[in-house]
This record gives sequence, structure tokens and C-alpha cells, in this order.
Amino acid sequence: MLVQAPYLMFLGDVPDQLAAKTAHGIVDWRPEWCLGQRRLEGCKADLGIPDMPIAEAAAKGAKTLIVGVANAGGVLPDHWVAEIVAAIEAGMDVASGLHTRLASKPAIAEAAKKRGRRLLDVRHSSETFATGKGAKRPGLRLLTVGTDCSVGKKYTALALEKAMRARGMDADFRATGQTGVFISGRGVAIDAVVADFISGAVEWIAPAAAETHWDLIEGQGSLFHPSFAGVSMGLLHGAQPDCFVVCHEPTRTTMRGVKHALPSIKEVIDLNIRCGALTNSAIRPIGIAVNTEALGETEAKALLASLAKEHSLPATDPIRFGVEGIVDALLAQYPHSAPKA
Amino acid sequence: MLVQAPYLMFLGDVPDQLAAKTAHGIVDWRPEWCLGQRRLEGCKADLGIPDMPIAEAAAKGAKTLIVGVANAGGVLPDHWVAEIVAAIEAGMDVASGLHTRLASKPAIAEAAKKRGRRLLDVRHSSETFATGKGAKRPGLRLLTVGTDCSVGKKYTALALEKAMRARGMDADFRATGQTGVFISGRGVAIDAVVADFISGAVEWIAPAAAETHWDLIEGQGSLFHPSFAGVSMGLLHGAQPDCFVVCHEPTRTTMRGVKHALPSIKEVIDLNIRCGALTNSAIRPIGIAVNTEALGETEAKALLASLAKEHSLPATDPIRFGVEGIVDALLAQYPHSAPKA
Repeated sequence: MLVQAPYLMFLGDVPDQLAAKTAHGIVDWRPEWCLGQRRLEGCKADLGIPDMPIAEAAAKGAKTLIVGVANAGGVLPDHWVAEIVAAIEAGMDVASGLHTRLASKPAIAEAAKKRGRRLLDVRHSSETFATGKGAKRPGLRLLTVGTDCSVGKKYTALALEKAMRARGMDADFRATGQTGVFISGRGVAIDAVVADFISGAVEWIAPAAAETHWDLIEGQGSLFHPSFAGVSMGLLHGAQPDCFVVCHEPTRTTMRGVKHALPSIKEVIDLNIRCGALTNSAIRPIGIAVNTEALGETEAKALLASLAKEHSLPATDPIRFGVEGIVDALLAQYPHSAPKA
Repeated sequence: MLVQAPYLMFLGDVPDQLAAKTAHGIVDWRPEWCLGQRRLEGCKADLGIPDMPIAEAAAKGAKTLIVGVANAGGVLPDHWVAEIVAAIEAGMDVASGLHTRLASKPAIAEAAKKRGRRLLDVRHSSETFATGKGAKRPGLRLLTVGTDCSVGKKYTALALEKAMRARGMDADFRATGQTGVFISGRGVAIDAVVADFISGAVEWIAPAAAETHWDLIEGQGSLFHPSFAGVSMGLLHGAQPDCFVVCHEPTRTTMRGVKHALPSIKEVIDLNIRCGALTNSAIRPIGIAVNTEALGETEAKALLASLAKEHSLPATDPIRFGVEGIVDALLAQYPHSAPKA
């Protein structure tokens, strides 16, 4: 799924900022791709970028209208259709993260057909994948794994991409969720793939590359989450990571959406090594990323120092303290991936 | 997915017996449901049951025409359509294990609509599932797991159902693959479910039941298979088995379709306990089922005795020596599931 930049961000008339979380993520990580936002009357979200009518965005070269909002039930309200059709008429593709497929609205389907534009439903996979082969492919790969869902796996992978590129390393973020697909313009919402093809889809997402190239693969769920561990397992096998970063949220007591306790970081390290060794016998942990938002600075630093000591790994909060320590570890342990002087 | 018996078995004009493997499995396990077979000119498969025209099967009460054959690519040839339409006109539902959806043939779709008959594509899941909850539900559950794909997991679960029912126990086979769905008339091809819903689908397949009731859940793949371990992991968590039988084929050296070596039975036991404990802390192995077809009788018995001793578990070839030893172990360890005198 290739989403072409630059984007016009469509927010409809969503009732709050939280409903535009995906759109915010895109603006945070790819401001240069986001020409403007298009809001309908009553919209309570604001991305902090210029409001822009369809015609102006088209004139400025917008290639894709991004429907990067989540409303109740993930449906596409009828009163958004006219604006989406207008974007198509102006020559844009449309990419949506809603459950409702764009083409299920006849006016949208007809306009796209007539104008030869693409309708990209990021939550639905139309790609056909092979089953995973499990054979080692060239290139270096890092996977972000978690003690739970929503603990910073996407953010950590993106922060690493940014820091590694800043040091001149050859690194690409690889998206496995819808926000990530919008941010990178490429990837697959792995939880929407048919079960038989999870690892095969990840082999497609992070294909063979130069021996000095890093894929920074966005993890999903947790091997310890009773709802989603199958996705995490297939992702681990398909990613065949050389190393992984464990992401964690220290104040959470039960896993998201269920009543199970969080596993320890040590358990997460052990099980990812044990299962990941199937497709990469050299798999190892390379760092710990903690979301310390709920802690004061002193407390956060003490926790990170304690985790670093306990696991002999760099431990950081990527948002608060950056990921340079993890990049240092990558360069130390995989020196051939250092930029050529 | 509920497939209504009795069945008329449709074989088309497949070129050999192997292409009718699914149909053979149905006749083996549910002979009383299979009224007859319908073969087109040139068909080289034979189920050993009466050849029966559509009209005769309908008169005898056939509820469903089963397309239980696999031909190259899983497609539905055009010259089969007229016969399938005739079955619908005669009042039957149609259930197919082919990749091609029945409704993709306009004549079939129209006939089904006109007559109000159901088209069941067992390989495609149209059911909507919730994500897995992971909460312990009442009832006893046994899962068949494997060192690899195609090592007798379905056969073992069905053999256990038969032996347990013969002893008066309350036990139901639960299908997770297409042949199993035809055999039980219910279930889901779990590898066709969207990845996010693997464990949720299994929670639907094996729902809460009486404390003395056994679900015998058909396993899929292996936690050690690099293509399909995600499916096996979600299945394990959704099944939340009290115990599991390890299925194995002793002459295989690499896993099906890939170059990976087979894991040992001990590794399979250990990893299923470790991961399965997430949704059932009391999970334990209860037996070993080996396909000894390639071995002589003396050699087979020696291997089984050695495995039984090594793992302190009953070890058998279900086809050759039955599963009574495993049923004995179930009664010894779960005495409340014994039939009331």
C-alpha cells in the first residue's frame, strides 16, 4: 500500500482532539508532507496547520486526501461524502483509516472510477501475500516489542529512524499499523491481514536489503496479550529481528482491554528471544523504552537507571530523553552499519 | 458456520483420489451423514458410497451439497456450475472448501438468492468475531498441538471424541480447519480469520460449557513453524486448554514447506506450557500421538514405549493403536468428567 505525499488532512467534524490522534501523529512525524487541514463546520480538532480548501490544496500539489480520524464505530458519515468526492474530482487519491470502506459509498466509488483515482482503506488489506518462508534475508532489522499494547512501539521505532538518519545511518521505519502506514506512505495494518499470512506480510514489509541497512519495524501487541499474541508472534517470526527494544508503561497494572497482569520486562525479553530464535538465532535485546509521562523527572531517571542496571541495557524515555543511548548500542554491536566517513 | 446434514458429496471430475481427501475424511468420520456421491464424467475419485443423482439425494432428504474436493489452484471450474445450480434448485445449501467463492459464479449466486439457499465458503470467514477476552470459561478443554503441520492433530481430536463418547463421556470435537468444519457441521477455518481475531474466534468455537464437558479442539500448525506460529499462538490462547496432546511424525526431518528442523517433543511441551499458562495456569500435557505409518509394528511399539518413558505420558499412534491410554489419563486426572454410573 503506497500512499502518495503530499497530503491534505481531512478531519470532518470530529468532536475532539483525541478523534484526530492518527492525523496528529502524521503531522508530528511528517510535517513536510502535510500541506493543510480541511475541517467541516463544528469540527473540534485542530492540527495547527493551515486550513485549506480542496481547490487550494490541489493547486499546491496535494496527492492524497487523508481521512485520519476515528469516530464512534469507525463509520464514514454521509455528510463527509461530498467533500471526499470533491477531493477526487480535484485529482487526489483518498486514504482512510476508518472501518467503513471508502468504496462502500457509491458516490465515492463512482468518482474514483471516473477520475482513475485510488481509494486506500488502510485498515483493510487488499494486498495478496505469500505465507512466511522464515529464511534469513540480508539486512539488519530491529523490532519494537512490548509488555502490552499502546506502550510506545511506533513512537520508539520512529524516534530511532530520526536519530539514526541524523547520524548518517541507513535506516527506514517499517509500518505495521494504520498510523504508521500514513506516516511512512507504505506498509500494512498487520492485524487486518488473514491469519495465515501474518509472517509472510511482514517479510513483504521488511524485504531483503543491504547488509548495512536497518529496518526499524513497528511492533504490535505483546506475546503476553491474550487477545493479540498471535499477531505479535507472526510479526516476530516475519521480522526475524537481529535485535529488539522492549517498550513499557510503568504505571499500568493490567493489560489493555483485559484483566491480565503485565509481564515483567525480563519475561518479555526471555520469550522474545526464545520464539524469535526460530528465524534469527542471533536475536538479542538492545534497549528498553519506557513511557515515563506519569512520573516526575527525578523518579523517571531513577527508574531508567534501575532498569538499565537490572538488564544491562540502555533504558530511556524516547520522548523525554531521546534514543541516543540505543543508537550508540547499535553502532557498538553492529559496527558495519556505521556511516562511511 | 453451521453446515446442515445429511450431505450429498460432490466430486466433480477430479483426476485422482488425493483431490478428494477432504471428502474422504468426511465419509470416514461421518458415514451416517453422507447419503451418496455425485460424480461427473471422467471423475477418478470414489468415496465407496452410492452414486446418486441430485433429484434422488433431494428426495432422500439431503440438506447440503458438499464440494469437498481440491483441484489445482482451488478454483471452481465452469463445467461444475450447472450441477451445483441443480442442487440449489432441488432445495439444498451448498458448502465448498475451494478458494473460489461460490457466489462469484453469477448462476450460483442467482439460484441461491431465488431459492433462499445458503452458500457456505468454508475457507472464507464471514462470521464477525470479538477480540479474545482471555478470561477463564467453564468446561474442560483439550487441544491437539504439533511438532509441525499435518501430523495428525485433527485425526487425534476426532479419535478422542469417538473413544470418549464410547465410554459415555460428554465430549465434542471442535473444528478449526475446513475438513473439520464439514465433519462437525460447525466451526471456523481459523487460518482464514483476520489476524486480530484469532483467539476471539477460538473462544467462539469452544464456548463456556458444563464443568464436566470436554471440548476436543483441533490444533493448527505449530508454535515452531515460521509460517504459521501466529495462528498456533492465538489458537492456544483462545482455546485456554486444560491439557494438550502433542502430535508428531517421526520420519520428517524438516518442517512442511520450509527448511527449518523439527523441534523436539520436549521443546513443544515446554513452549506450549509457557505460552498457554497465560490463559490457563493449570495447562499440562496429557499424551503423545505419533503417526507411525512409516514404521514396522515392532519399531513403532518400541518408539512409543520410549517416548512414553521419556515424557512420563501415554504415547500412541491413534490410527494403529487407538487412544484409550489418553482417555484413561483424562479420567484419572479429571475424575469429575467421568460418566455418571
